[in-house]
Amino acid sequence: MTPNLAIGFADVAAAAGRLRGVVHRTPARTSRTVDERTGAQVYFKCENFQRMGAFKFRGAYNALARFSPPQREAGVIAFSSGNHAQAIALSARLLGMPAVIVMPQDAPPSKLAATRGYLQGRSGSEIVLYDRYTQDREAIGRRIAAERGMTLIPPFDHADVMAGQGTAALELIEDVGPLDALLVCVGGGGLISGSAVAAHGRSPGVRVWGVEPEAGNDVQQSLARGEIVHIDTPRTIADGAQTQACGALTFAVMQALVSGVLTVSDAQLIETMRFFGERMKMVVEPTGCLAAAALLEGAIDLRGQRVGVLLSGGNVDLAQYARWLQG
Amino acid sequence: MTPNLAIGFADVAAAAGRLRGVVHRTPARTSRTVDERTGAQVYFKCENFQRMGAFKFRGAYNALARFSPPQREAGVIAFSSGNHAQAIALSARLLGMPAVIVMPQDAPPSKLAATRGYLQGRSGSEIVLYDRYTQDREAIGRRIAAERGMTLIPPFDHADVMAGQGTAALELIEDVGPLDALLVCVGGGGLISGSAVAAHGRSPGVRVWGVEPEAGNDVQQSLARGEIVHIDTPRTIADGAQTQACGALTFAVMQALVSGVLTVSDAQLIETMRFFGERMKMVVEPTGCLAAAALLEGAIDLRGQRVGVLLSGGNVDLAQYARWLQG
Repeated sequence: MTPNLAIGFADVAAAAGRLRGVVHRTPARTSRTVDERTGAQVYFKCENFQRMGAFKFRGAYNALARFSPPQREAGVIAFSSGNHAQAIALSARLLGMPAVIVMPQDAPPSKLAATRGYLQGRSGSEIVLYDRYTQDREAIGRRIAAERGMTLIPPFDHADVMAGQGTAALELIEDVGPLDALLVCVGGGGLISGSAVAAHGRSPGVRVWGVEPEAGNDVQQSLARGEIVHIDTPRTIADGAQTQACGALTFAVMQALVSGVLTVSDAQLIETMRFFGERMKMVVEPTGCLAAAALLEGAIDLRGQRVGVLLSGGNVDLAQYARWLQG
Repeated sequence: MTPNLAIGFADVAAAAGRLRGVVHRTPARTSRTVDERTGAQVYFKCENFQRMGAFKFRGAYNALARFSPPQREAGVIAFSSGNHAQAIALSARLLGMPAVIVMPQDAPPSKLAATRGYLQGRSGSEIVLYDRYTQDREAIGRRIAAERGMTLIPPFDHADVMAGQGTAALELIEDVGPLDALLVCVGGGGLISGSAVAAHGRSPGVRVWGVEPEAGNDVQQSLARGEIVHIDTPRTIADGAQTQACGALTFAVMQALVSGVLTVSDAQLIETMRFFGERMKMVVEPTGCLAAAALLEGAIDLRGQRVGVLLSGGNVDLAQYARWLQG
């Protein structure tokens, strides 16, 4: 373990033990078309096939599984409009603890319904809605946490969350062998920091690349400046990467273990979504296409290399997905 | 082997040997939502992830792999507007033999392009286009076969094709264990006859159910009458099941080994396509949804049973797919 980082390889390995039999061991898929087009040997880790449709379940479950008995009894609180909400709600249900999820009133109805489904019939569990234009979700979260003694689990800047996310890359390398390069999408940095620790632990010499939306390249800027850069909420269809800044813990890992960050445009994400639908018969959400788009659309040349690409999730409103495909 | 049937279990097992390392061993996927909704334990065999996007590759390759040296030299001819064309073209390419594919002028551009791609640069290989309103494709096929000494491989009524198709069900049972029931789509009967032979060979007591589009239930009628019934080309979005009649060889196997045939509507196919996109993040073509639709939409009650469901393919025009999803 590199000193001063929040997690080391042993933490990811321990998370994998906790997650065994609970997460889906998602497949690593290949495509002759992709290999011919890129000149590389490419393995897609399909977290769009993960429980609740995204890798986020790994980190959430790992964090909740480490709660002490009193923490379990009081339960967990989280705020998120996206996959983290569902991940916490499902993990709490599986571990039998109360969960409060603070979500914006205007969150996608499908995500509200899925989260509500996981919480249903669990005493002490609820969704708390807020108005994102007039209310401060962090204040709401802190107040409920204090009142009910609940533990707040943030979406990325938390050692147990990061270690859990790293188990996807660990499985990939166990399944397909050592990699020369690993491409991972970057929002707050939870997935890529766990992945980088896992990959460097199991595949010495690997180079880990992050991929952000062009419109929201805060981590690319942060690595260049050597300090965390804050940006306005970026306009991009990659809703999982609309973060304004990465975390302190994830930034330190990225500084130590990530070779660089590439960017792709929304148009390239749509092209990549279409490729996955047409050729690999998979639905991948825009954020889930970031890493693949960098490779397929030529942002990086990895000819002759063994390349892992994390597809982070598949949770997309299907009517919106259909509109993107129709162009 | 039941006497008088074109194939027995040994033929499917031999086909599996020929196909090893050539076909993808496609995953068997599960869904908690499906299990809860049906009360069964359901395993989806994902032939939408097969090479060229459908199970048809299995039968075509198995048939071509059994050619004698003179047959290989002269090559293969097939007529099809759909997945069989691509399956023969790809198999011929892999086995290094010439192939002529007779396709209608108005076949979907994506299927023409894919077939052309497989034939490209292979001497003696070509696509022959015909006008389906004025020309007889069988006459064209017979003439070319006679002139060039090519062997005609039909899409379903052929022992080697049927045996090859059976390898998907064989893999499924090897991977998940014995089944109580197996649901399979029915067009000409190639997939279900091979599947029934494989399933009865490896999973004694299994009941095999066919599923046809409501608008084209020729096999349901044929089994009821005890003779092959011919119908007009049915109007259904399940283009792989728009057959007017099954084959003599496939009918005999179905009479012996299939418990019954269910039907589903186009609206139920679209619901099922949406379910796969939304919940299982997969693109499944309408024909590929037939077997699943019967179960998910309640045409059969298999509560308490271990159920295999074959998803036959994922080759659908993505713009059309998007229109169906938008409703």
